[in-house]
Amino acid sequence: MEKISHAIFVLFGASGDLAKRMVVPALFRLFCQGFLPQNFQMLGVSRSFFEDDAFRKSMAEGLEKFARGDSVSLEKQKEFLSRICYFPIEYSQPKAYFSLKEKLESMAIGKEKNYFFYLSTPPLLFEEIAINLGNCGLNLENEGKRTIVVEKPFGYDLESAKRLNKRLLSIFQESQIYRIDHYLGKETVQNLLFLRFANGIFEPLWNREYVHHIEITSAEFLGVENRGGYYDGSGILRDMVQNHLLQMLALVAMEPPCIIESNAIRNETLKVFQSLHKMSHQEILQNTVRGQYTSSFMQGEKFLGYREEKGVSDESRTETFAALRFYIDNWRWAGVPFYIRAGKRMPTRVTEVVIHYKPAPLSLFTRGGLFPGNMDKEALCETCNQLVLRIQPDEGILLKINMKVPGRGFVTQKINMGFYYKELANAYIPTAYERLILDCLEGDSTLFSRADAVETCWEFITPILKAWEGDEIKLYGYPCGTWGPQEANSIFEDKAFGWRYPCKNLASDGLYCEL
Amino acid sequence: MEKISHAIFVLFGASGDLAKRMVVPALFRLFCQGFLPQNFQMLGVSRSFFEDDAFRKSMAEGLEKFARGDSVSLEKQKEFLSRICYFPIEYSQPKAYFSLKEKLESMAIGKEKNYFFYLSTPPLLFEEIAINLGNCGLNLENEGKRTIVVEKPFGYDLESAKRLNKRLLSIFQESQIYRIDHYLGKETVQNLLFLRFANGIFEPLWNREYVHHIEITSAEFLGVENRGGYYDGSGILRDMVQNHLLQMLALVAMEPPCIIESNAIRNETLKVFQSLHKMSHQEILQNTVRGQYTSSFMQGEKFLGYREEKGVSDESRTETFAALRFYIDNWRWAGVPFYIRAGKRMPTRVTEVVIHYKPAPLSLFTRGGLFPGNMDKEALCETCNQLVLRIQPDEGILLKINMKVPGRGFVTQKINMGFYYKELANAYIPTAYERLILDCLEGDSTLFSRADAVETCWEFITPILKAWEGDEIKLYGYPCGTWGPQEANSIFEDKAFGWRYPCKNLASDGLYCEL
Repeated sequence: MEKISHAIFVLFGASGDLAKRMVVPALFRLFCQGFLPQNFQMLGVSRSFFEDDAFRKSMAEGLEKFARGDSVSLEKQKEFLSRICYFPIEYSQPKAYFSLKEKLESMAIGKEKNYFFYLSTPPLLFEEIAINLGNCGLNLENEGKRTIVVEKPFGYDLESAKRLNKRLLSIFQESQIYRIDHYLGKETVQNLLFLRFANGIFEPLWNREYVHHIEITSAEFLGVENRGGYYDGSGILRDMVQNHLLQMLALVAMEPPCIIESNAIRNETLKVFQSLHKMSHQEILQNTVRGQYTSSFMQGEKFLGYREEKGVSDESRTETFAALRFYIDNWRWAGVPFYIRAGKRMPTRVTEVVIHYKPAPLSLFTRGGLFPGNMDKEALCETCNQLVLRIQPDEGILLKINMKVPGRGFVTQKINMGFYYKELANAYIPTAYERLILDCLEGDSTLFSRADAVETCWEFITPILKAWEGDEIKLYGYPCGTWGPQEANSIFEDKAFGWRYPCKNLASDGLYCEL
Repeated sequence: MEKISHAIFVLFGASGDLAKRMVVPALFRLFCQGFLPQNFQMLGVSRSFFEDDAFRKSMAEGLEKFARGDSVSLEKQKEFLSRICYFPIEYSQPKAYFSLKEKLESMAIGKEKNYFFYLSTPPLLFEEIAINLGNCGLNLENEGKRTIVVEKPFGYDLESAKRLNKRLLSIFQESQIYRIDHYLGKETVQNLLFLRFANGIFEPLWNREYVHHIEITSAEFLGVENRGGYYDGSGILRDMVQNHLLQMLALVAMEPPCIIESNAIRNETLKVFQSLHKMSHQEILQNTVRGQYTSSFMQGEKFLGYREEKGVSDESRTETFAALRFYIDNWRWAGVPFYIRAGKRMPTRVTEVVIHYKPAPLSLFTRGGLFPGNMDKEALCETCNQLVLRIQPDEGILLKINMKVPGRGFVTQKINMGFYYKELANAYIPTAYERLILDCLEGDSTLFSRADAVETCWEFITPILKAWEGDEIKLYGYPCGTWGPQEANSIFEDKAFGWRYPCKNLASDGLYCEL
């Protein structure tokens, strides 16, 4: 990757919430660390009208609120803001983009004209903006790099994703397109690759011989907040599972890449998506459960049910909880069930991957040395080891092993061996946006979704979405602050097992639980 | 194991240091926990003359000093002491044992006469006491259990160990003889069995395919203290390696037993000893290093060299440091080097077992993705995983794995995943003596050495002792407070590796080191 010294970061949707909360603070932190190109500028673009100064003031407020690092001097902030301009645009107006082009040319320093178009707008505008950028030649790399960064959601189903890809690829090269999945920007998600491939001890057991099942959970404490209107047309399967959780799955399940390089890694993730067993209608009936949160009282406070939320239809059948069981049809994973669960208004916010290992072939210490086949289910579960990869919060890794209860006799107990990121004194853990924006400026697309991968994920998810449109599959209510409908446990292949109840505090997981 | 309600614990060497410091406090703690037989009595026996009360007073002093648990009431102590009597004896006087027998019969409550003869005397007396006990029929189990417990050292070399076994076995059955190795009484040593056989994930890698080498260290900060006279006739190979460290090795290297039961486990440990590759003279020259500590200053304090210690000859060639490389010739371990090191006056007190795993087959992240065969030695060592089993102090388990350095790019760092016993809130960890004495009272010999095992260990060690008698193998000096002579690293098969420098504080091991 060549290093560039000039860059204009064109932020579409600059007056929006995401821009102020995530994108600009990330740029600022990169700036403070000296990671941005020497001549970096940002141009905010949206429908609203602002003077440059008013826009800067608004961004400054965002930095106060959302940029970590109290020690940052006002000087730095001033310097950063001085590199920001604003340009109002009517997105549907082709002419406006020619003016934008002139504006960019007037800003450019030197010969190198590297423009990064970052689309932090509603997804409906992606196509329009791309077409108009193409119209006035802002897609062409004659005078510098031209990159388009697209926020999620990428498509609404297989058909729309294909159409969007087709359109973008008619204007930009795949190498110019960066589809953001901010889960891939998370340190702990990237660390999945390291855990597996920078160590000799995990990979030999990372397959159907030793793994009993794999569980991926993304739970949120929050409900839909002020996004009810948007959310009611989407649902958690589209909003979390199709993108973030399948991307994580790919890193968990993929074969070792030949080399740590963008296309090598993306080829391997694609193979995982291609190997996902496409579920028949019958399988969808058996292996999926959906839910919607209902009102409840927690610690004296009333929480609204989903249908009572602002912007949500009071007959809505949109799911706020989804649980799936599925398989990966390849040599490594044949027959190993994967379980994915995502939900809003759960007891706590937590995202994690858990590898559940098969039990030892003979249980010498538990209830009289029975073979796993003969053991009672509860004892069996107790003897299995687990590797918990905590993505957020309280980031870390836990290995659950059996040890001797100190004292007389030979009795086992399960204990946690842990590594906790918070122990890494002074380690600065960048936010997902910092990592991804920097990668994008440096031309590294490893952590972005490629067209084929996005479509293959939709191919897997769309039949489920379709099946859920009907009434054949029940929509269960679950009270706010619970782990979703009880029925979610019914999809487990081995009925001795069920969903984990993770603790917020990783170190105490399974020992005593604080939510 | 049947439960007994009467027991007389006959403590030979009752006026000695070990009795006061270890054995009696252990009995007291067992008493406080209600683990001793209902009618438990102790009879102190030694050459000195005491009145019962004077002896009790002396034991009470020992309890004050050495029995943990401040909360123990004076009542309990009084009750315990009331069960103690004393009986002076001239060990070489056969008649004295008939008097002892009468004394025991006068103490016995009810019909059950269970006597436990605990020999906490100099080893020279073991034979004599056993013969005399036999002479007056105290070996016979007609009226109750008769157990003889023998402290270390068991023999001085192969020949003497064989003679002692032969003598004991002509008087007692093997099932009546308990040979103490207090390392086997340690919680963390017993936990080796659990780690391996109560978990499904360690055993698949616990063999020559995945293990690069295994390292066992027992370092003491102390020198010979007031044992110079005894020590100079022994040396660390006899005092630590032949018994404690080989016993630990057996638990690390053994095959899974059929069942958790005394003879099943002892059969497996015996197989390990039988598989130890007996070293030729040439191999001893290459694979062993010995050392002796020399005086030095540490933190302003002067520490004496070994030859300056009281009771030690100033031309002594007794080793206070030993390092061995050896192999276990069986299917599991063929070709895997084992390294054992023991030393006095090291920088810190630590006993641990470390499994060093082979590197991943391809190093994707380290210095450009080289295969292990081509990597530079330093990078190679860095990529290997280690499992550290800390026996003492700061008991725990550490898994050293490679993770991503947070932030830009893909760079690895080694981190610790740990479990620390001190985290087990409220877990009472019994001392080795508590565990072993209780097992002995309950008739469980799992954690005691069997005659054949002791002799097989001596078979392995004796040729080394013999070779070290000559001058062909150098005796290196090393200053107090160092990790032994530099030359100890020369025995490593793979020169990229060397001895670990463990930290006292397990959690910070390898990160920053406090001694």
